[in-house]
Amino acid sequence: MRTIRLARRFGATLAGLVAATSVAAQGAPPPLQVPEKSVPVPADVSPQMAKIVGAPLRQNWNIQPKTGEEWKPVAEAGAAALARQVPGMLERLKVKVERTTIDGVRAFIVTPETIPPENRDRLLVHVHGGCYVLNPGEAGLPEAIFMAGFGRFKVVSVDYRMPPEATYPAAHDDAMTVWKAVTKMADPKKTAIFGTSAGGALTLAMVLRAKREGLPLPAAIAPGTPMSDTTKVGDSFVTNAMLDNVLVSPDGFCDAGAKVYANGHDLRDPMLSPVYGDMHGFPPTILTTGTRDLLLSNTVRVHRKLRDAGVEAFLQVGEGQSHAHYIRDDTAPETRKVFEEIAGFFDRHLAR
Amino acid sequence: MRTIRLARRFGATLAGLVAATSVAAQGAPPPLQVPEKSVPVPADVSPQMAKIVGAPLRQNWNIQPKTGEEWKPVAEAGAAALARQVPGMLERLKVKVERTTIDGVRAFIVTPETIPPENRDRLLVHVHGGCYVLNPGEAGLPEAIFMAGFGRFKVVSVDYRMPPEATYPAAHDDAMTVWKAVTKMADPKKTAIFGTSAGGALTLAMVLRAKREGLPLPAAIAPGTPMSDTTKVGDSFVTNAMLDNVLVSPDGFCDAGAKVYANGHDLRDPMLSPVYGDMHGFPPTILTTGTRDLLLSNTVRVHRKLRDAGVEAFLQVGEGQSHAHYIRDDTAPETRKVFEEIAGFFDRHLAR
Repeated sequence: MRTIRLARRFGATLAGLVAATSVAAQGAPPPLQVPEKSVPVPADVSPQMAKIVGAPLRQNWNIQPKTGEEWKPVAEAGAAALARQVPGMLERLKVKVERTTIDGVRAFIVTPETIPPENRDRLLVHVHGGCYVLNPGEAGLPEAIFMAGFGRFKVVSVDYRMPPEATYPAAHDDAMTVWKAVTKMADPKKTAIFGTSAGGALTLAMVLRAKREGLPLPAAIAPGTPMSDTTKVGDSFVTNAMLDNVLVSPDGFCDAGAKVYANGHDLRDPMLSPVYGDMHGFPPTILTTGTRDLLLSNTVRVHRKLRDAGVEAFLQVGEGQSHAHYIRDDTAPETRKVFEEIAGFFDRHLAR
Repeated sequence: MRTIRLARRFGATLAGLVAATSVAAQGAPPPLQVPEKSVPVPADVSPQMAKIVGAPLRQNWNIQPKTGEEWKPVAEAGAAALARQVPGMLERLKVKVERTTIDGVRAFIVTPETIPPENRDRLLVHVHGGCYVLNPGEAGLPEAIFMAGFGRFKVVSVDYRMPPEATYPAAHDDAMTVWKAVTKMADPKKTAIFGTSAGGALTLAMVLRAKREGLPLPAAIAPGTPMSDTTKVGDSFVTNAMLDNVLVSPDGFCDAGAKVYANGHDLRDPMLSPVYGDMHGFPPTILTTGTRDLLLSNTVRVHRKLRDAGVEAFLQVGEGQSHAHYIRDDTAPETRKVFEEIAGFFDRHLAR
């Protein structure tokens, strides 16, 4: 008897639900109200990654410096703290760094202690992240060091100009200056470009610009969780807000930084929102993001767009990871796997 | 003056934050409290997908039928509603379906009106989803029809036994019976297995069992958002709860269905939680999920595990999509792209 009642209730409800679903959205459906939730660190990450994933939200994620001058001390304080981690990284990963200048642009040459024969003539270009306002100097190096160390490639990392020194398109111009120089130092078929966040967007923008200017393209690129849409389109800007402990919110410090760099330039320009660029003819691309990443959507949208343009494009998504968690701790096994994946991808696509 | 004060405040705070982050988690970090939020349909999806994404949470997502008898009317009501959509799909996609029995197992042969020459000798096996208790008969066919229609492959879809007719390992056994028969109908190098949700888990479990039993493996597989972990490990079980409008919660109807099918069998057995299986030697695999999918983590964990085992594995993630949204509406461009991606992957990996 109870079974029959249950049966009626469930049966009728399920049928009703299917009908409701199909007529649901003849107008714009109302927003979904998602209740407050308590989110523990997931069980299936390493202890090192658990620390990163379980860290509280970035303090003062909602600061809104409005000028390059206001950003400068923020950038310097963050950079000083990050730069202190660099010597340990260099030692653990057996990598050396030297400052240089390439056609007037500040850069670093990042070299692994041993370079395997297949990588001897290969050269990678790195563009760091930091919302176009953070990580000057050595603070921009961790990702370049990880790539050099785990992949045993030689890397040129661009220490591009940022506010208050200069605004758009200065960082883009500096990156292109280095790119042009690199295409003369190495066969472009033996090169790749990579970077995370603003550096991921710059990576994509560099290819768009190289296409436009008729320059050689790299043999592969690795944009990590690219700031591919600074106009705030993208579902995870909402769904992962207050969950991503790095960027935290689409209206936070990173948006403020990008706007100061843009300096009034149209944010829909593919140079600043490369998801809107024409990706036909792009080289093979490997994208990295995480399940909690505020830019998860902007990464998967670039992936889809590349595939629609017929480009070989590979996506890796880290369990539980917020924005760019994979460039925090070189001792986390998740970090190693991300960079080994990228290195393998480069190895398959770069000429020897 | 104001700039200097701002500078001091931001600078000090940023430095403090980096220090705080690095000492944060020496014990288990506390859960993150994510506030309530209002989530609109994202701007960057098609109108068809917007309807699916914007639908309210599945009604009675928290029903908990405890026996196969209690599930039967639920399954029948849902199946009747879904089956009504099948004729339209067949017509739009120019596909035919016939019921058959393969070595005693109920199945459907799903055939596109025209099969291109390269697919003439190829044969795909489909295992439907539905938490091991839903989508009997024609209700299990939409994904098979989409694959046949968009990919122009011939498909055998297994209408496996479910509670109350039978419990674990009946569905697995039926799928293996069909798999064995298919390896005699076609060269296994010209075959693939695919399925979504429980069907994604079954796809993975079939390969694990074929390995164990020394049977031929397919040339490729396409597990869509697989129920790869029925033990509820996986970050998106929490982060996407009450956001995924299909599964809604790790403690909802789908968990109840899987438990009724498992009938007391250990949920950690890789047959029911294939993420814990040994994936060495797996064929090339294409995985599909969405940014709001409750099983996003269980999909990306399988992807990582496959890559760690040296398997070619490709991941696609749909913007804004909840669990299995890509098998709802064949007229949505997102649906077409998912199936064309899978078809292209099969075409590259199946012998001709």
